[in-house]
Amino acid sequence: MSAAEAPYYEPVGHERELFEYAFHRKLPLLLKGPTGCGKTRFVSHMAARLGLPLQTVACHDDLTASDLTGRYLLQGGETVWTDGPLTRAVRHGGLCYLDEVVEARKDVTVVMHPLTDDRRVLPLDRTGETLEAPEDFMMVASYNPGYQHVLKSLKPSTRQRFVALELDFPPPEQELAIVVHESDLARERARALVNLAVRLRELKGQDLEEAVSTRLLVYCARLMQAGMPVLQACRATLVEPLSDDADVREGLMETIRATFGG
Amino acid sequence: MSAAEAPYYEPVGHERELFEYAFHRKLPLLLKGPTGCGKTRFVSHMAARLGLPLQTVACHDDLTASDLTGRYLLQGGETVWTDGPLTRAVRHGGLCYLDEVVEARKDVTVVMHPLTDDRRVLPLDRTGETLEAPEDFMMVASYNPGYQHVLKSLKPSTRQRFVALELDFPPPEQELAIVVHESDLARERARALVNLAVRLRELKGQDLEEAVSTRLLVYCARLMQAGMPVLQACRATLVEPLSDDADVREGLMETIRATFGG
Amino acid sequence: MSAAEAPYYEPVGHERELFEYAFHRKLPLLLKGPTGCGKTRFVSHMAARLGLPLQTVACHDDLTASDLTGRYLLQGGETVWTDGPLTRAVRHGGLCYLDEVVEARKDVTVVMHPLTDDRRVLPLDRTGETLEAPEDFMMVASYNPGYQHVLKSLKPSTRQRFVALELDFPPPEQELAIVVHESDLARERARALVNLAVRLRELKGQDLEEAVSTRLLVYCARLMQAGMPVLQACRATLVEPLSDDADVREGLMETIRATFGG
Amino acid sequence: MSAAEAPYYEPVGHERELFEYAFHRKLPLLLKGPTGCGKTRFVSHMAARLGLPLQTVACHDDLTASDLTGRYLLQGGETVWTDGPLTRAVRHGGLCYLDEVVEARKDVTVVMHPLTDDRRVLPLDRTGETLEAPEDFMMVASYNPGYQHVLKSLKPSTRQRFVALELDFPPPEQELAIVVHESDLARERARALVNLAVRLRELKGQDLEEAVSTRLLVYCARLMQAGMPVLQACRATLVEPLSDDADVREGLMETIRATFGG
Amino acid sequence: MSAAEAPYYEPVGHERELFEYAFHRKLPLLLKGPTGCGKTRFVSHMAARLGLPLQTVACHDDLTASDLTGRYLLQGGETVWTDGPLTRAVRHGGLCYLDEVVEARKDVTVVMHPLTDDRRVLPLDRTGETLEAPEDFMMVASYNPGYQHVLKSLKPSTRQRFVALELDFPPPEQELAIVVHESDLARERARALVNLAVRLRELKGQDLEEAVSTRLLVYCARLMQAGMPVLQACRATLVEPLSDDADVREGLMETIRATFGG
Amino acid sequence: MSAAEAPYYEPVGHERELFEYAFHRKLPLLLKGPTGCGKTRFVSHMAARLGLPLQTVACHDDLTASDLTGRYLLQGGETVWTDGPLTRAVRHGGLCYLDEVVEARKDVTVVMHPLTDDRRVLPLDRTGETLEAPEDFMMVASYNPGYQHVLKSLKPSTRQRFVALELDFPPPEQELAIVVHESDLARERARALVNLAVRLRELKGQDLEEAVSTRLLVYCARLMQAGMPVLQACRATLVEPLSDDADVREGLMETIRATFGG
Repeated sequence: MSAAEAPYYEPVGHERELFEYAFHRKLPLLLKGPTGCGKTRFVSHMAARLGLPLQTVACHDDLTASDLTGRYLLQGGETVWTDGPLTRAVRHGGLCYLDEVVEARKDVTVVMHPLTDDRRVLPLDRTGETLEAPEDFMMVASYNPGYQHVLKSLKPSTRQRFVALELDFPPPEQELAIVVHESDLARERARALVNLAVRLRELKGQDLEEAVSTRLLVYCARLMQAGMPVLQACRATLVEPLSDDADVREGLMETIRATFGG
Repeated sequence: MSAAEAPYYEPVGHERELFEYAFHRKLPLLLKGPTGCGKTRFVSHMAARLGLPLQTVACHDDLTASDLTGRYLLQGGETVWTDGPLTRAVRHGGLCYLDEVVEARKDVTVVMHPLTDDRRVLPLDRTGETLEAPEDFMMVASYNPGYQHVLKSLKPSTRQRFVALELDFPPPEQELAIVVHESDLARERARALVNLAVRLRELKGQDLEEAVSTRLLVYCARLMQAGMPVLQACRATLVEPLSDDADVREGLMETIRATFGG
Repeated sequence: MSAAEAPYYEPVGHERELFEYAFHRKLPLLLKGPTGCGKTRFVSHMAARLGLPLQTVACHDDLTASDLTGRYLLQGGETVWTDGPLTRAVRHGGLCYLDEVVEARKDVTVVMHPLTDDRRVLPLDRTGETLEAPEDFMMVASYNPGYQHVLKSLKPSTRQRFVALELDFPPPEQELAIVVHESDLARERARALVNLAVRLRELKGQDLEEAVSTRLLVYCARLMQAGMPVLQACRATLVEPLSDDADVREGLMETIRATFGG
Repeated sequence: MSAAEAPYYEPVGHERELFEYAFHRKLPLLLKGPTGCGKTRFVSHMAARLGLPLQTVACHDDLTASDLTGRYLLQGGETVWTDGPLTRAVRHGGLCYLDEVVEARKDVTVVMHPLTDDRRVLPLDRTGETLEAPEDFMMVASYNPGYQHVLKSLKPSTRQRFVALELDFPPPEQELAIVVHESDLARERARALVNLAVRLRELKGQDLEEAVSTRLLVYCARLMQAGMPVLQACRATLVEPLSDDADVREGLMETIRATFGG
Repeated sequence: MSAAEAPYYEPVGHERELFEYAFHRKLPLLLKGPTGCGKTRFVSHMAARLGLPLQTVACHDDLTASDLTGRYLLQGGETVWTDGPLTRAVRHGGLCYLDEVVEARKDVTVVMHPLTDDRRVLPLDRTGETLEAPEDFMMVASYNPGYQHVLKSLKPSTRQRFVALELDFPPPEQELAIVVHESDLARERARALVNLAVRLRELKGQDLEEAVSTRLLVYCARLMQAGMPVLQACRATLVEPLSDDADVREGLMETIRATFGG
Repeated sequence: MSAAEAPYYEPVGHERELFEYAFHRKLPLLLKGPTGCGKTRFVSHMAARLGLPLQTVACHDDLTASDLTGRYLLQGGETVWTDGPLTRAVRHGGLCYLDEVVEARKDVTVVMHPLTDDRRVLPLDRTGETLEAPEDFMMVASYNPGYQHVLKSLKPSTRQRFVALELDFPPPEQELAIVVHESDLARERARALVNLAVRLRELKGQDLEEAVSTRLLVYCARLMQAGMPVLQACRATLVEPLSDDADVREGLMETIRATFGG
């Protein structure tokens, strides 16, 4: 796939250049940013630009190191080794993207260590192999620093293995371009929506755990484009997904009615 | 099954329209509402109206991602992959409904992530497949916001992937229609029961964890229709299932006796 | 087995009628009552009266949903599905009785959900089957509301799926009939024992976690009938099983000596 | 084995009569008493007197219900059911003795429930069998009420299924007979030891978790009989096993030196 | 192996006599003492003196009873029983030594119970066997009473099954003999080291969790004998292994410099 | 591989001599030092100098003793034993390096015990073997003392089995040599970077969990050498990987701008 066919991505700063420097100098990359700001899309876009296959793993509490590296399965009375997504990326090259890496258990973060220092190897204790990462292998991980965990954080010994980059919601003009591109909503209606998002995000931190994301703006725009009344579309995408508290939701609806009337 | 054959459902607001907009724009839907208000029935109804197969999964603490996606089973000395309900819905199309999704573990909510953003894919790490969801695949999840969990809630990064809708107990006229339809109880006796429910629900929050549901009203109506004395039927369905506290139960019985005499 | 052959059960109120109404209207039933008051005997009795097979499952922390629904076992190199007791009851009809359901884990209570609303189905994700419960299938569950658990209780979304009934120790005349029937002890000696039980139960709540049960009265009567001295029989059945505290036990023995002399 | 060949046991009260009444009336028995007072020996003795085989299970945190009831093992490509000790006792008759039952998990205590009420059956869900206990089956359990557990205790619904009996260290004359019988130590030296034990037990509760047991007295007597100096034998059996605290141990040694001189 | 070939051990008191009395009277032995004082060496020495094979098991949190007793392994399609180290010792005779037994889980300590009272049997529930311990079987266990665990301790019902013995670091003349024997360091240099150890051990309890062990003295002597400068050798063996705190380490180094100059 | 081919390592003190003394006297070695100061590189370097194979294991919470020692795998219907990395090192000689050993579970640290005292054996309970370590086997472990764990630390009984050595970030001239060697950045630009690191490390302890490592300096130098603007390179390597706090990051950027202008 050529860069021209890469998934749509609207760059905000020098993030594409940093990604490419890191790739060419064989350094792993850590993306930091809020829910729904486009981290996953950015990684897909860069994979396409660089012409690399992409292995994505959504991390969670119950993901084991074996889910990443592989396991023995029984076939025809034999136990046969089957590569996991990380091993596939190391064996054949390309990007391995660990989404929400903070959610992973310690054994998952530790399995990355020999791949994210100068050794660039993946020891597979269960097969006795030690795979050397090819030139075009790159490890990318992401997490959301605004969503606090009491019990979970990346250990310094893991963080200090990555070049890091912070992403945020795009500024209004770029967010407008994204909403229009993803929903086909008329530009002027989309602009009203993006302006609303700016006002809604100012309410964050008081009673809202997280601000409304670019993704939810796109959802709203799609429902509006499909003909749904604007207040109903806003309630279903910008209010109900954010809170269960009646007062908070009424506060959001007031801001919405102030924008669109009704 | 044509819409005419869909399970009986009495709409309260624009919930059917929102469901259809979400389905046609390929957006996942999150239903919020109290126990026994009809969330599961609503999903069955919409599946039938849209002519779609329905996979329902009741979520809980011990449900694993493998219970959703599938696992290897030993058959004839071979390990053979067997799809779980989520994978079946992605492979063959239709609705996948995760009931009480707040009860699920993190690995279960995370497995939905690539299906609930613009990728609409289900990566099966253990088989090496990445399934693309067909046009007619839709993810629906539900939970009860009034039932508080100290330790459990949906992460913002999961919530912000859904269009959301709040359901509640239906207003009296619709609840009356439902009770009559489900129990064949005479309309006037059913009306007394619905009026009683309104009064009983006002007692909620003091000593009752949850208000009496439409489901329990239907149970009561069925016992009355079968010939059971009304006070016995009310005690067995509107009092004993709600509380073990002697004072609370006596308070409920007083309201019931005030309604039906005795 | 005809009703005439049903296990002996001495009804206290309308519990048999409620059971039968619930069975005929296909509603699940929840029994509440203290240890040893006869809940399990009542269920056996009703199963025999209604001519239904009975599957009993004693619930506990380590019981899994698979213990109820079934599992794959290896036979001749094949994994063969084997029904659990709940699946047997759904496939072939009859009562499925979950004793002390509060002790069960969440996955066990959730597996009952689709069987205890209007769907009356049991989805077996691991075999891909969805079993429809036959006309004569009925779910019965029980727990002891007087035995408090800090960490354990039935969720409202589970409770509100049941018609509920509270049982208690029978009044003296009925308890006397039970003790005589079960022990063959002379009626007058049994009457003294039942009167003693009334006095001992008044001591509950101060230092005793639970009151002496009908079951322990029967044990005492059997030892007396076999020739054991009455104070020794009372100590072994009405004192030592209830407490390890020296003062509490001496208090119980005083009441016993005041009744029987010695 | 005739009663004449039964393991040596020195009765303290009516415990043998109570055991026999319970056996003949098919009631389960619960033994309460401190560490090393002879509970296990008493059960072995009664098994021999009654001519019954004995299955003993030492309970602990990690014992599962399957360890009691049995499990499927793979043999020649088949999974073959293998009875556990409880199932063996139910299938073939005899005593099943659960030592330190308080240490067992909930699933272990619950598996006893249908065997310890009037049903006297053992349902084996995994094989689909329900075994009826034969005439000569008896369940015996024991625990130490003086050793407090914050998190562990027998549930009332379990305790109220047993006839119960408290055992304690034997009075001096009987303890003397036991020590002499088990160690062949000269009667006068043994008497000094038993008198010492009385004094040492008075120190309990201050800094000692448990008092010196009859078992440790026998150990001491055996070392003395073998020629070990008395103070060395006492230190190794009556002091070091009881405490790691230097002051407590010195206090015990003072009492010992006051008894034996030196 | 004759006693002349037994591993070097320098006796401090009557520990060898007590071990032999316990062995000949078939009593289990519990060794108490600090890290590195020679408990393991003492057991090896006694095994050789008594001409007995020795099975050593280092206990820890994740050691299961099956690791001690054995398990079924799959061989040629059959599950074949394989003895664990405890079963090997019971079946063939000799010492079974459980090092740091306090670290073991409850199921591991409980598996010793029938072997450490007058029964001297090992019931293997999974094979249905009950092994009788031969004449020359002896159970030995050890732990460190100075290293406190909030959550871990030996239950009285386990402790009271053992004859017990406390070991400590040897007095200077014996420690000197040990250091010289194990390192070939010149006697006068070794004497300086032993004198240093006495002074360093006085610092314990303030900031040091444990005092310097005889083992570390031997390490230091070996490095000195190999030609390493004395202060470097002391830092690497008597300071860095004991603490990560800069002040504590400087305090230790000051004492070392005061001894050796520099 | 001759020492001339050993991975580049810039010695700071006598660490190479201590490593060699420990190797030749058969003593295990414990390395202490902060994240990214070169512990792993030092071990690789010494392995090459001594001509020894190296087995590296990154420790974590979920690593089991079996991951180190080996396990049975099913092959052709047989269970076949497969050595783990520790067993491979013991069987064939060479270094076994346990990175971040503090993260390991108790069973992993305990498995090292018989290898790290005078026995130098590895008992494999599951195969029944006891392997004697060859002359050229050496155990090396490392951890970071500056990164505090509330729940995790090495037990004294483990620490006192090792000769220990503390490593730290190298002094400026040596760090400069390392940065230039690893990045090919011009010497003067690298010197500015090393001077910056000294200033940044002084900020540690206030809001930074760990100071910037030599590894991150090398990352920064590589990005600069590749042409990336210096402030962008510093932000991506010396700021974003260290903190998510806006104020802390701004403080770091100020120091950077003060160094490089801009």
